[in-house]
Amino acid sequence: MTSSVRKYQNFTEWFDELLFSAEILDNRYPVKGFAVYKSWGWRIIKRIIDMIEGELEAAGHEPVLFPVVIPEDAFSKEAEHIKGFHSEVFWITHAGDRALGRRMLLRPTSETAMYPLFAYWIRSHADLPLRIFQSVPVYRCETKATRPLLRMREFLWNEAHTAHKDWDDAERQVREAVKIYETVFDRLGLSYLILKRPDFDKFAGAVYSLAFDAWNPDGRVNQIGTVHNLGENFAKAFEITYEDVDGSHKNVVQTCYGLGLSRTLAAIIAQHGDDHGLVLPPEIAPIQVVVVPIPYKGFEEDVKEYSRQIYERIRKSGLRVHLDEKEIQPGEKFYYWERFGVPVRVEVGPRDLKEGSVTLSRRDTLERMVVKSDEMVPSILKLFEDISRNLKERSQAALKSMIIDVEDLKNLRIVIKERKIARISWCERVECAERIKEYSEGEVRGHLFNIDEKPDRPCIACGGEAKRVVYVARAY
Amino acid sequence: MTSSVRKYQNFTEWFDELLFSAEILDNRYPVKGFAVYKSWGWRIIKRIIDMIEGELEAAGHEPVLFPVVIPEDAFSKEAEHIKGFHSEVFWITHAGDRALGRRMLLRPTSETAMYPLFAYWIRSHADLPLRIFQSVPVYRCETKATRPLLRMREFLWNEAHTAHKDWDDAERQVREAVKIYETVFDRLGLSYLILKRPDFDKFAGAVYSLAFDAWNPDGRVNQIGTVHNLGENFAKAFEITYEDVDGSHKNVVQTCYGLGLSRTLAAIIAQHGDDHGLVLPPEIAPIQVVVVPIPYKGFEEDVKEYSRQIYERIRKSGLRVHLDEKEIQPGEKFYYWERFGVPVRVEVGPRDLKEGSVTLSRRDTLERMVVKSDEMVPSILKLFEDISRNLKERSQAALKSMIIDVEDLKNLRIVIKERKIARISWCERVECAERIKEYSEGEVRGHLFNIDEKPDRPCIACGGEAKRVVYVARAY
Repeated sequence: MTSSVRKYQNFTEWFDELLFSAEILDNRYPVKGFAVYKSWGWRIIKRIIDMIEGELEAAGHEPVLFPVVIPEDAFSKEAEHIKGFHSEVFWITHAGDRALGRRMLLRPTSETAMYPLFAYWIRSHADLPLRIFQSVPVYRCETKATRPLLRMREFLWNEAHTAHKDWDDAERQVREAVKIYETVFDRLGLSYLILKRPDFDKFAGAVYSLAFDAWNPDGRVNQIGTVHNLGENFAKAFEITYEDVDGSHKNVVQTCYGLGLSRTLAAIIAQHGDDHGLVLPPEIAPIQVVVVPIPYKGFEEDVKEYSRQIYERIRKSGLRVHLDEKEIQPGEKFYYWERFGVPVRVEVGPRDLKEGSVTLSRRDTLERMVVKSDEMVPSILKLFEDISRNLKERSQAALKSMIIDVEDLKNLRIVIKERKIARISWCERVECAERIKEYSEGEVRGHLFNIDEKPDRPCIACGGEAKRVVYVARAY
Repeated sequence: MTSSVRKYQNFTEWFDELLFSAEILDNRYPVKGFAVYKSWGWRIIKRIIDMIEGELEAAGHEPVLFPVVIPEDAFSKEAEHIKGFHSEVFWITHAGDRALGRRMLLRPTSETAMYPLFAYWIRSHADLPLRIFQSVPVYRCETKATRPLLRMREFLWNEAHTAHKDWDDAERQVREAVKIYETVFDRLGLSYLILKRPDFDKFAGAVYSLAFDAWNPDGRVNQIGTVHNLGENFAKAFEITYEDVDGSHKNVVQTCYGLGLSRTLAAIIAQHGDDHGLVLPPEIAPIQVVVVPIPYKGFEEDVKEYSRQIYERIRKSGLRVHLDEKEIQPGEKFYYWERFGVPVRVEVGPRDLKEGSVTLSRRDTLERMVVKSDEMVPSILKLFEDISRNLKERSQAALKSMIIDVEDLKNLRIVIKERKIARISWCERVECAERIKEYSEGEVRGHLFNIDEKPDRPCIACGGEAKRVVYVARAY
C-alpha cells in the first residue's frame, strides 16, 4: 500500500484503498451502489464461481440461467415475500417512449422468476428432487449507506433452488447445502459462525433461515451465505404439486440458498489481507507465482535467461505463473505483487544462478527460503498448502478472539463498541432484541446451527428466563 | 425427435421443438422475448464463453464486469448512438414506491457504461492499447417478432472494447478481432460471410461495421458477430484523451466487437443439427461420450461390469463421459442421446464383451464401427477430429450451395423466396437498397470484407454503374 492506512485501525479506508490499488473494483461508476469489477477482482470472483458451481454440480445441482426481469404479478404471489422485498426493488416501466402494459422488476432474488417454471417442470415424484443454480447479479435498492463489495445495489451471488417430496427430504437438503458452503468457505480459508436467524430476521417467505456470518476487522459481521427452508409457502402460491406413487397430489417442499460472491470476495480481502495488501489463497489467485529477476551488473543477460528457464519450468507444471521483466527495480516489483496478494514470489539473482537455486518468498508471512531449482515446484506446492493452512488458522484465531461472553447490557455496549461479537443469553422475545439493538447497536444474529448451546444465565435484556445463547454484532 | 418435423421443410417448428426437447431453453417464461436457459443449453453456452474468453485473453484482453444499468445522461452523450438505440431501451424509473431522481436504462450494449470509466483509466500513451471484455446479457426491446435464441429482448453476448493511440492501431485491432472471431467460429464448425455493412446499416456511432452472417436453413442469415471501428466519435463525446510522447493531448481511437452467444448457439443448432436432433462439435458438448450397455439374457451382470470398466477407462482419459444405466431399452437411449447431440456413443454388448471390443457410433453420420477396447480412446479422439472436420465441411458446402448469383430483380425475388442468399451488383445508393428490400424482402447485407470482388454488371436496381458486389438475404 502506498499510504500508511492500517487494516485494524481504519478498516474502511484500508479496504477502499485496497479495492482501488489492487484493481479489484472501481467505485467511480456514476450510479450509487453500482461498481465496476476490474480484471484482478473479476478473475478472483470467476474462480470462486467455478468453486461453488463445481461443488453444486458434484452434489447433483444443474446450472441454468433465468431472466433478470420478473413480471409484477409473479412477484406478488407470495404474500410474505413481496412484503419483505417490495420497498427495495427496481421497476422497469417503459421501453423506448412506450409505457409497458405491466411493470417488471429486476430480480432481488429469483424465487418468483423460477417457481412459475417449476410448476411446469414438476409433474410426478420422479421429477424430484429438482436442484438448480445460477450465478448472477441481483438488485436491491438498499436505503442504508452502500459500501463497495459489502453492500451494493447490484451484487453478485450464486443462488440454488430445490424442490422435494416432503419436509424430511428438504431438511436433508438444508444440511447438504450447509456442508457445500462449509466446503467452499473452508477452501477459501474463511472463518464464520453458522447461525439460525431469529424468526423476525428470517428470509421473506421462509419457514426458517440459516446464515454464515463471517468476521470482519471492524467487528461488523458479513453475511456471506444463507440457507432457507421454504416449506410449502411458495409451492402453495405457485401451485407446484406432484403426483405421488399412490396417485395423490401433494405440494413440494422447497429450499433455496445463496452464496454472496461479492461478499465472499470482501471476506477474503478483509480476513486475509494485511497492511501490505491482499493475501490470496493459492487456489483462487489469478497469478499464483511471480518470477522476479534480480539482475546484477555484468550478469544481466544470464539472470534473464535463467529466470526464463525457471518461469518455463513452473509454467509447465500447470501453475499460474507470471514472469515480471518490466524495466523497474526489483523492490518495486516486490511491493506491487505483494499488494495484489500473489501467494509465492520466486526471486532469481546472480547467486541463485551460480548455485542452481531460487529464493522463494511466501506472501502470508513474507518469509523467504532458498531451494535448489530441482526442488522448486514441489517446494512451491508445499508452500501453497502451508499458506492455505496458515490463512485458515490465523482467521479462526481472529474469530475466536473476537467473541466475548457478556452478561449485562452495559458491557454489551462496550464490547460492541470495541468491534467484538458478543455471546449472550436471550429470552427469544422481539422486544428484548430491539432493546439490545437500541442500547448497544448490535443485532441479535441468531444461535449456532451446529452446536446446541444451553443458556446458563437469564436474558440479558429483561432478566427473564433465557431460551437461547445468541450472538450479537453489528452487521453489513 | 419424437415428431416428424423436418429441418429443411419447416425450420421454425423444427428449431423450436428441438430447443424444448433437447433442453436448451424453455420459452414459457411469462415475459415476451425473455427465456430460461436450461442446463444442457446453458452448459454449451458456458463452453462457448470459455472459448471466446480464452482467445481474447490470449490476445491481451482483460476480463471485467460493468453494471447492467446506465444513467440517462451518459447514454445520451453520443448523438448517433442514442438515435440508434433510444426506441428500444428498457427504462428503470422507480425503486420501491419512490421515483428515481434520474432514469436509468438496461444496457443494450455497453459503450456508454464503459467509456466514462475509460476517461479515468486512460491518461497517457502508456495506458494504450486498453482492451477489455465481458460476457453478459444485454437488453433491447425488439419490436419485430421475437424468436428464441435468434431474436430475444434479453440476449447473451461477449463484448470487447478497446482504445488506441491512432487510427492505424485501431485498424490493426479490427483485423485482430476478425481473426479471433474466425478462430472461435471455425472451432465450432460454423460457416458465415464476413461482410462490411452498408453505411446505412452500420452500428450507431461507428465509422464502419463488419459483421459475421451465418447461414440458416430457412435462408434468413443470423448475425453472430460484429466488429466496429468507432473512430474518435465516442472519445469526443466522453472526453477520452491521452498525453502522447511529445506532450500533446489526443483523442483515443476506439473499436468494439460483440459475439452473440445466444445466436452462436442458434447457429450451431441450425447448421449442424439434423432430423434426429442436435449434432454438437465435440469441443463444446457437455457430454462427449455416452456409454450404453446392451444387456443380453444371461449376461446382464457381465455386460454391466464390462460397461463400467469401459466408462472408467474413458473417464480417466479426461473426456466428458456418461454411463447410461437407466432401466429402459437401449434403443430408447440411442434416440435420447442422439437428440442431445452427444458426439460419440459407445455400445457395449455381449459380443463386445467376448471379443474385448466396443462399438462406436458417431453422431454426425450415424456410422458405427467396432474397435478393440485398447484402441478405444485413440479411436474416439480420432472420431472427434473426423466429426469436427465433417461438420465444418458440410456447413461450408451448405453455405456455398445457398449463394446464388442474380442479375435482375425478378430472379432476386425468386431466389430470396427460395431461401437463398443472393450475390448481386449494387450502386451503393440507399434508394436502390430500399427498392431491393421492397421488391424481394431481402436486405443488402454488405460486401465481403476479406475478398475484393469487382462488379462486372450494372446495379441490379437502377441499372446504373455498380460499385460493389453485395450479398442480399432475409435476416434475423
